[in-house]
Amino acid sequence: MNTKWVYGFDEIEEAERYVGGDWDGVRGLLGGKGANLGEMTRIGVPVPPGFTVTTEACNAYLEAGEEFSGDMWEQVLQALKAIEAKSGKTFGSIENPLLVSCRSGAKFSMPGMMDTVLNIGLNGQVIDAIIERSGDPHFVYDSFRRLIQMFGSVVLGIRDEPFEEVLANYREQRGVSTDTDLTVEDLKEIVLKFKDLVRRYANIDFPADPYEQLRMATEAVFKSWNGKRARDYRNAAHIAHDLGTGVNVQTMVFGNMGDDSATGVAMSRNATTGEDTLEGDFLINAQGEDVVAGNRPTEPISTLKSAMPAIYDEFETIAGKLENHYREMQDMEFTIEHGKLWLLQTRDGKRTAQAAVRIAVEMTDTGLISKEEALTRVSPDQVDFFLHPQFSGESKRGAELLAKGLNVSPGAAVGVLAFTADLAERWAKDEGRAVIMVRPETKPDDVHGMLAAEGILTSSGGRTSHAALVARQFGKPAVVGASELEVDVAARTMTIDDQEVHEGDWVSIDGTTGEVFLGQLETLVPNIQDPYLMRLLEWADEFRTLGVWANADYPADAERARAYGAEGIGLCRTEHMFFEQERLPIVQRMITTKSTGEQREAVDALLPFQRADFAGLFRVMDGLPVIIRLIDPPLHEFLPGYEELTHDLADLKIRLSHATDLKEVDELLTQVTDESTMLDRVEALREANPMLGTRGVRLGILMPALTRMQVRAIFEAACEVTREGIDVHPEVMIPLTSHVNELKRQREVLEAEAQAVMEEQGLDIAYKFGTMIEIPRAALTADEMAEYAEFLSFGTNDLTQTTFGISRDDAESGFLIDYLSEEILPSNPFATIDTGGVGMLMQMAVEKSRSKRPDIEVGICGEHGGDPDSIAFCNTLGLNYVSCSPFRVPVARLAAAQAAIAQAPAD
Amino acid sequence: MNTKWVYGFDEIEEAERYVGGDWDGVRGLLGGKGANLGEMTRIGVPVPPGFTVTTEACNAYLEAGEEFSGDMWEQVLQALKAIEAKSGKTFGSIENPLLVSCRSGAKFSMPGMMDTVLNIGLNGQVIDAIIERSGDPHFVYDSFRRLIQMFGSVVLGIRDEPFEEVLANYREQRGVSTDTDLTVEDLKEIVLKFKDLVRRYANIDFPADPYEQLRMATEAVFKSWNGKRARDYRNAAHIAHDLGTGVNVQTMVFGNMGDDSATGVAMSRNATTGEDTLEGDFLINAQGEDVVAGNRPTEPISTLKSAMPAIYDEFETIAGKLENHYREMQDMEFTIEHGKLWLLQTRDGKRTAQAAVRIAVEMTDTGLISKEEALTRVSPDQVDFFLHPQFSGESKRGAELLAKGLNVSPGAAVGVLAFTADLAERWAKDEGRAVIMVRPETKPDDVHGMLAAEGILTSSGGRTSHAALVARQFGKPAVVGASELEVDVAARTMTIDDQEVHEGDWVSIDGTTGEVFLGQLETLVPNIQDPYLMRLLEWADEFRTLGVWANADYPADAERARAYGAEGIGLCRTEHMFFEQERLPIVQRMITTKSTGEQREAVDALLPFQRADFAGLFRVMDGLPVIIRLIDPPLHEFLPGYEELTHDLADLKIRLSHATDLKEVDELLTQVTDESTMLDRVEALREANPMLGTRGVRLGILMPALTRMQVRAIFEAACEVTREGIDVHPEVMIPLTSHVNELKRQREVLEAEAQAVMEEQGLDIAYKFGTMIEIPRAALTADEMAEYAEFLSFGTNDLTQTTFGISRDDAESGFLIDYLSEEILPSNPFATIDTGGVGMLMQMAVEKSRSKRPDIEVGICGEHGGDPDSIAFCNTLGLNYVSCSPFRVPVARLAAAQAAIAQAPAD
Repeated sequence: MNTKWVYGFDEIEEAERYVGGDWDGVRGLLGGKGANLGEMTRIGVPVPPGFTVTTEACNAYLEAGEEFSGDMWEQVLQALKAIEAKSGKTFGSIENPLLVSCRSGAKFSMPGMMDTVLNIGLNGQVIDAIIERSGDPHFVYDSFRRLIQMFGSVVLGIRDEPFEEVLANYREQRGVSTDTDLTVEDLKEIVLKFKDLVRRYANIDFPADPYEQLRMATEAVFKSWNGKRARDYRNAAHIAHDLGTGVNVQTMVFGNMGDDSATGVAMSRNATTGEDTLEGDFLINAQGEDVVAGNRPTEPISTLKSAMPAIYDEFETIAGKLENHYREMQDMEFTIEHGKLWLLQTRDGKRTAQAAVRIAVEMTDTGLISKEEALTRVSPDQVDFFLHPQFSGESKRGAELLAKGLNVSPGAAVGVLAFTADLAERWAKDEGRAVIMVRPETKPDDVHGMLAAEGILTSSGGRTSHAALVARQFGKPAVVGASELEVDVAARTMTIDDQEVHEGDWVSIDGTTGEVFLGQLETLVPNIQDPYLMRLLEWADEFRTLGVWANADYPADAERARAYGAEGIGLCRTEHMFFEQERLPIVQRMITTKSTGEQREAVDALLPFQRADFAGLFRVMDGLPVIIRLIDPPLHEFLPGYEELTHDLADLKIRLSHATDLKEVDELLTQVTDESTMLDRVEALREANPMLGTRGVRLGILMPALTRMQVRAIFEAACEVTREGIDVHPEVMIPLTSHVNELKRQREVLEAEAQAVMEEQGLDIAYKFGTMIEIPRAALTADEMAEYAEFLSFGTNDLTQTTFGISRDDAESGFLIDYLSEEILPSNPFATIDTGGVGMLMQMAVEKSRSKRPDIEVGICGEHGGDPDSIAFCNTLGLNYVSCSPFRVPVARLAAAQAAIAQAPAD
Repeated sequence: MNTKWVYGFDEIEEAERYVGGDWDGVRGLLGGKGANLGEMTRIGVPVPPGFTVTTEACNAYLEAGEEFSGDMWEQVLQALKAIEAKSGKTFGSIENPLLVSCRSGAKFSMPGMMDTVLNIGLNGQVIDAIIERSGDPHFVYDSFRRLIQMFGSVVLGIRDEPFEEVLANYREQRGVSTDTDLTVEDLKEIVLKFKDLVRRYANIDFPADPYEQLRMATEAVFKSWNGKRARDYRNAAHIAHDLGTGVNVQTMVFGNMGDDSATGVAMSRNATTGEDTLEGDFLINAQGEDVVAGNRPTEPISTLKSAMPAIYDEFETIAGKLENHYREMQDMEFTIEHGKLWLLQTRDGKRTAQAAVRIAVEMTDTGLISKEEALTRVSPDQVDFFLHPQFSGESKRGAELLAKGLNVSPGAAVGVLAFTADLAERWAKDEGRAVIMVRPETKPDDVHGMLAAEGILTSSGGRTSHAALVARQFGKPAVVGASELEVDVAARTMTIDDQEVHEGDWVSIDGTTGEVFLGQLETLVPNIQDPYLMRLLEWADEFRTLGVWANADYPADAERARAYGAEGIGLCRTEHMFFEQERLPIVQRMITTKSTGEQREAVDALLPFQRADFAGLFRVMDGLPVIIRLIDPPLHEFLPGYEELTHDLADLKIRLSHATDLKEVDELLTQVTDESTMLDRVEALREANPMLGTRGVRLGILMPALTRMQVRAIFEAACEVTREGIDVHPEVMIPLTSHVNELKRQREVLEAEAQAVMEEQGLDIAYKFGTMIEIPRAALTADEMAEYAEFLSFGTNDLTQTTFGISRDDAESGFLIDYLSEEILPSNPFATIDTGGVGMLMQMAVEKSRSKRPDIEVGICGEHGGDPDSIAFCNTLGLNYVSCSPFRVPVARLAAAQAAIAQAPAD
């Protein structure tokens, strides 16, 4: 059978049959652009006639050593004849000459492929004929010089600079600023000069034969498939090299043929708000380039209604038809030539997050798309947008960018710089100032300042540094690890190169992009209560099978989480309660005393605080499960830093050596003694690798009194709220387990204490006991763990650290950056679960634990719980829920629904 | 069928039939002691007649609520009748009374079980009869008071103190020092007083009825099975609680019946040297207790030959018979009563390491046992004994124990204390003094002192601390983590409680036990060239399937390893070469410079050093593989410590603030500047968790010039020695890989550089490329790794750290101690591979990598490679080799043979 290498736009059905009726196959055969032009033609949208040379022709051409295969060229000529018949014009004729454009068009749009050549078919004789018909020599000569220039650069590979230089010289000579203001004579001379350039740089005469022009353009498209830029792009984007590109040859139409001509672009709906009205711009008597270039003010599409009412109606009808056909909002290019409307292109339109949501919901309401489709058309990032203030697009224009760091907690924040937590709090609370708190890095005792600030900025630390975790937890915009910034807390300055920013200066940070700007940028506050979003998330809840819980330590967090749709608390970190100002001294006493009695007293003193905290959480989460994790961090985190202490001590000693006043000496001596004692204790608790040290369950085993106190607080609180009529579901979670015996031991302590409290209170509280899975050994032995654990929760931050042997804080500001930029790792495993390693352990843990206890509740409470890709993976594993920060709950609801839809078995 | 509860010693065959012919079953039924007495009886060894009440009777008694089951007691009485018939004596008779002993005897010997009651059958009437017959009232009354005392304490649970008090009072009154010197009258009174004590403490009369005595003793044995001490012991030793204990009732014989009576103990071979001659002690006219008590000087067994030649011959024959029967050296107790020899007990004899080896080899030579048996009879620890000086048993007697620490590197060392590496080296090298180097902990720049010292002592650090690793590597005895010691380097004192030990004082440390003594203790040096050991290890090589390689960084280590039988180098740590004094400044320059050129120069300057090191290793290992690991530790390890620097800097600043002399100020300022610069660099390289930081392959990827230099050094060295006629097999190993892309990248660098060197040199070197598996992710993705790796080597130290999430240095002096003492972990996972977690990863790695590359070479080079239990596990996994420190090579050879024998499929 003779291969069909060329399809007219009106032969789309034949192409469809050839590939077996599959739209993806049609795009593969004709390229995306060719398929779309054919599709528009099929549904009766007016498209300038044309045809597509197939990708198969391209592949055959390249395989044959750059020779057209078989009768390909004859098929092209035949297709050209068909266009001539349709348009009544003749290619190369001096009577009524046909001009065409030639464009590449692969299955996927791809930079590096050959661009457009317009006006093919012009030569010295043809232009005379056209000038005669149009009476517009300026337009015609300009069209010709464009053809030579485009042909020269695009087909013959001549750099654009010599052409532009010629034009610049003429503009200078004439004292004009645009090419439009050059005279016809100028353009005539330019055409000659351009032909010279072609001769000089490409060693050939510019081909006067229109067929030769078309043939060379076609070959150039084919060859560009194997160009270096295209190959590199395909390698990077993982696109196969054997797809080939199509070539689209199409009749030229002109919007600049007088006042009955026009050109424009339009969206089928409002791309900013999503409202269902045409939106766009056009110009009477102009070319497409003019609309984009902005040298003439454009008109809104609505005015076309009065200028050309019939055309407007036709366009509106076509827009509706295209939207219905593609079942998506369309972004269209059109040209009106002598009162005749032509569509040149249509594609899915880009839109804001708000518009995406509204369009998806409204299209579902009108029955155009299904709920499933609506859910997959909004990206989780677009939901996230609703949760944080944003800089308007305009506000960044001209703003002074100081630095870029890691975008760890999204949203925009504007405020004055404060270098300490205390100052941040004072300014914010007492003076009502908006504050950006800046630190080299943050520590637990900075939290009060972070809470008071609008946003957080650090010069070191990674995606899961303390600053990042706290910021995400509280929905504070944050940029961390902005290493270009030199933050000098003592001097109260932040230096970037030579520029100094001082305490009190205004800065704006964009946690969505990681940018840091000088000054006050304008912000917009989207609305999470957006009714369209609310409906979309309700649909998400219908489809998703994964539960969405939240990580929350305080009742206020829990309230927000519930408002955003959380179905439980997956992680309450009890130690956060220990850091609060009135409690920290008690905690420090507990740690530093050598007397068991005093330690016991300190532990007991913490009980009422913890009980009240838990009672508050339980009240908010009435009817829903609350997972409380027992104390996790190493004890030294509650004490002053070693370096701070040694520096202070050194300073004190210097002062002491200079002191002359006896009273001063006495005071200094006391201070030295106190600090030395503290230093001793801090030293004793120091660890070479605290991440792998005495923390988590190890603390609980070394200090069973602490476990008992926490369990007592949980159960006393549970009894208290039960009496108030609250439905309480506590789940007690042991962190950092690596061996089943740890769990067994802690369970014994828990059961004894829980039983004791319940007997004292005369109440029976249903509860669950479980553990984090955040150490490889815990995952590997999850079947053993399941003997004692009624639930498991993946702590994927730590699990990633230990599975990779990577300290996240060190790595994310260190070698991990190189690893990602050099593509040694495909993605940051602390942002998205490493399915090949960490994920394998998770899968083993799920399978092993369920083999022992089929109804075991398995969830995830690491940072990954809010990451859409990771959520999809959790859905594959069949977890019961993901738990993330309250601000990620809506995102997770959508991502979970998308995962469920994507992974649903085909009907 | 009527249950048989009681077996006469002469009914062993019936017992054997009952349990199905299985010796283990016989021991289960009769207990170890009963089975042995029956066995001796069967083979014709003269054993005083007796019988065993079965363990089943014990279980039935306990289940029935402490009631004898069925006709058990009737069977006992019948068995007693049988003894009476054999001995011609009658139990409880006043004519010719039979006395018996009653002993417990479970399957496994077990502390906490009821001890022996002797002389059962005595009462007021019976003793009169015996006195009449023997004419020795002193002996008889003494026997009687012993019965009452033993019965009181053992059967009735009365504390021994009141009995001893009575005896003490009499001795005092009589002014004598031993009970033997009390008069018959005294003993008569004591018997009465003892009976009073029984009445007072147990509220019963001492039973005069011999049958009642026997019944109560039997019940006491049964009950003791469930006593707290026995239960605790069984829990700890993992012995089942349902085994029960047997009761052995046996005719009393007396070695103190005159000069034709005697008693003694003897070994069938010399327990110290292993020589094949009887060894033992005896006493004429004495009781067993007297031999042990040492209040009369014993005679060597050889003198029995002249004293009682016929008996000696008989005994010698019996000893040979027993050895042949049990196929093991025997430890025997015997009594001669009126010229008649009786064997009371036989069991396998304890022996020294040397004796164990010689006996095993000689028994094989005479055909008594097979080579396999010989190999399993010597423990790997016994081989280790040959490799290190030891304290003689006597030397520790009376020595002053200062402290106990971790026994991390075996052997004895004696020397004077030195608190710094420099001093240790100076004293050892310049003054020829034996030195024990003591530090709070050691660092890489202490190594020259450690090498010069006889032994190493630290107050902190764990089983895999720097001190422990280096010590084991070089076979230096070491005790680390002796936390009772307060080591004050500045004051040059080591304090324990109130005792101060100063620099230069003599101390002795035992790395085999972890003990630290004051003063100079005597040491013995065993001989590794022991001909018996050599033969045993040759046999080991015949049986083992695992290769035994060694970890060695220097040619001297490699030589030792080869001498000890290593078949390759499994790990050469190239960074150890970087720490040497002349090289360290170059390394520091490489790290601290900001100029790429200067860095390149420093790297190049290291090349000749490394090349020479590798060439040396290759020469020693002619014909065998050498695995060279590229640089592993984080760079800051090569720089001065952060704290040291900050302290120095603080001191300098204080001195500066006091300085008045201008020149001094200038000098101090320069120093401050230099140290500040170094501090900046050290600070930049600091990591929160260096174990999980920028080290291993991560360094190689960040500094490819370093990788290239190391590869060049390896291949230039390989070419150099090839020209000398050496057969070289280099294998290049990448450390700390977690993702296959790291390996892929490093392999590219390696191949390019190796190719370049081989082309320059015009030689082709066969080599292998591979990686450590020391990160969980590497194990999980070993199939991917196997695409690029031709060998894998488990770094189980790090793999254990990351799999457990435990920092070994912190943990081994911290919570791990509690975890082990509280049995949360069954054993230290850094000493023996945790098969349940780490081992699971290893197994996955082996299976996955072999699925991709069936001939991949897989070994282990972590500390576990020298641990017998871990070696057995590696054998199960089917590894190709284990690699350990040279000093563990002989141990590993034996352990590997034992593993192969134990795991060999049954015929």
